[in-house]
Formats: sequence, structure tokens, C-alpha cells
Amino acid sequence: MEKEDFMRQAIALSEENVRQGGGPFGAVIVKDGEVVATGTNRVTASHDPTAHAEVSAIRAACQRLGTFDLSGCDIYTSCEPCPMCLGAIYWAHLDHIYYGNNKADAARIGFDDSFIYEELSLERDRRHKPMTELLPHEAKAAFRAWEEKADKQAY
Amino acid sequence: MEKEDFMRQAIALSEENVRQGGGPFGAVIVKDGEVVATGTNRVTASHDPTAHAEVSAIRAACQRLGTFDLSGCDIYTSCEPCPMCLGAIYWAHLDHIYYGNNKADAARIGFDDSFIYEELSLERDRRHKPMTELLPHEAKAAFRAWEEKADKQAY
Repeated sequence: MEKEDFMRQAIALSEENVRQGGGPFGAVIVKDGEVVATGTNRVTASHDPTAHAEVSAIRAACQRLGTFDLSGCDIYTSCEPCPMCLGAIYWAHLDHIYYGNNKADAARIGFDDSFIYEELSLERDRRHKPMTELLPHEAKAAFRAWEEKADKQAY
Repeated sequence: MEKEDFMRQAIALSEENVRQGGGPFGAVIVKDGEVVATGTNRVTASHDPTAHAEVSAIRAACQRLGTFDLSGCDIYTSCEPCPMCLGAIYWAHLDHIYYGNNKADAARIGFDDSFIYEELSLERDRRHKPMTELLPHEAKAAFRAWEEKADKQAY
């Protein structure tokens, strides 16, 4: 299969998801030329604001492959990832992102994540979302325990 | 209960999670002065790179409350959120973020998400992670279907 075939599968998922009442987003994760998992946007159906197509596909691929590390996999998503999904793609170590619609297209139909991109690029005390430091010294205990743990599984 | 009590619960979760083999992170979501859900980092245990404490707590709170919108809730997290979790917090519409450790503390023990923050602030063609546009015209079909759908549930 060619790259275009994988993207057409992601696009078909996005179209089917609208018919099923979800948002117009689909994603496919591919390893060694084969689809290992797919995902659609299930925010409203699943009561899960994190269930974007890319996050759903990453979770499914990790379950299928029994790992939290998707190095060697690519993601084909019908729309350019939002900051949450892009963060998830980095943590999952996906190799390459192929996208159909871009974020300007998404903004035109009411899915505007440019505000979140802007917020994340600001220092924390300049963001609109209030962030308050609390008990930083007490919070250090778990970090020390992690450092001292001999058999920890890093990730 | 006071703010400090909620943060201490998040910190206690982070400490217990290290003992159970997970990362040193815990989070608590509070509405109207009551804890509605908690979360810990289960990346390695659950084979889920998105299972950070904040994302886990958001998912649990949404299941508990039967909604994808956590307006009116605050999150207490033992460590400043990474870009993925911060994105999730925006999508979930949480009101206020209280954090214990900050991202510099996290970097010192090997959890450095500053690279992801930097990447997200760059234009897509300047990022290290390759992103390629593919079939943008075909991808528009689902967006048109969404626009034309009369009974869609926006979010």
C-alpha cells in the first residue's frame, strides 16, 4: 500500500465518524507497511475530551503492540494534530506525521486550536488559564523516591 | 478542605505510584470543594503513553460526571503539566491549575518536556518531527459533511 492509501483510510474514517455523530476526524497508525490501529474522534460519544482521533489511534496501537513506544510507526491523520495530540505523538515516539486538512481548515469549521497553541508558547504566568504553585517542597518527596528507586522502568 | 489538602492528596498519589512502579506523578480533580476523580501516571503499567496523571484524572472525572466538559472543576497536580496534559486541560475546560513540582524539577530527574514545548511553538516545517501534507482536497469532504450536518453535537 502507498502513503495515499493510508491517508484515504484515515479520511474514510473521518467521514464515517460524522455519519455516526462524531467529529470529522480519523487517524491510522502504520508500521512496516501495515495498519496496526485506527482511531476516530469520540469526545462526545465517550465523554472523553482526550479522545481525539490521534490519541485514540495511539492508545489502540499501543494495546495491539503491547508497548508504550511506537518508534518505527507513522501516523496518518485526516487533520493536522492539535497541541494535545502533537504532544501525545512526541511521547509515543511516532516517526512521521502525514495530515490532510490543516489547522486553518479546522478553524474555519469551528475547531480552532490556535488559542491553545498560543497559550502553550507563553510563559506560565502570562497564560489566560491560571496556574498556581502550591507546596513545591512537599512535592519533591516523590521525585527523590523516583531517583532513589533502583528497579524503576524509565520511559 | 483547603487547597493544600487537595495538593497533599495529589502528592500522596505520586509517592504511592512510585512504590507501585509508576512515574512520580499524581493528580486530583475537584468540584465544589470535593474530589471527583484522581489519576496517576500509568504509562508503563498500561502500555499507554497518554496515561499521564492529568489525562488519567480528566478521563476519570468525565466518566464520573458523565460529561466531556469539566468547567467548574480545578486540577491539583503534583507536577506542572506537559504540553499534552496542558492541551487536555484546555479541551476539558478546567478552571484552575495548581501544581507542586515545576517542569525544571521534572527535567532534573529525567522527565524533560521542554523539547516538546519548543517543538510546539515552532511553525510545522521547522519542527524536528517531520510533518507532510497529503491529499488535502480529499480530506475536505468530512469537513463539508460536518458543516452540513443539521443535528451535530459541537464541543
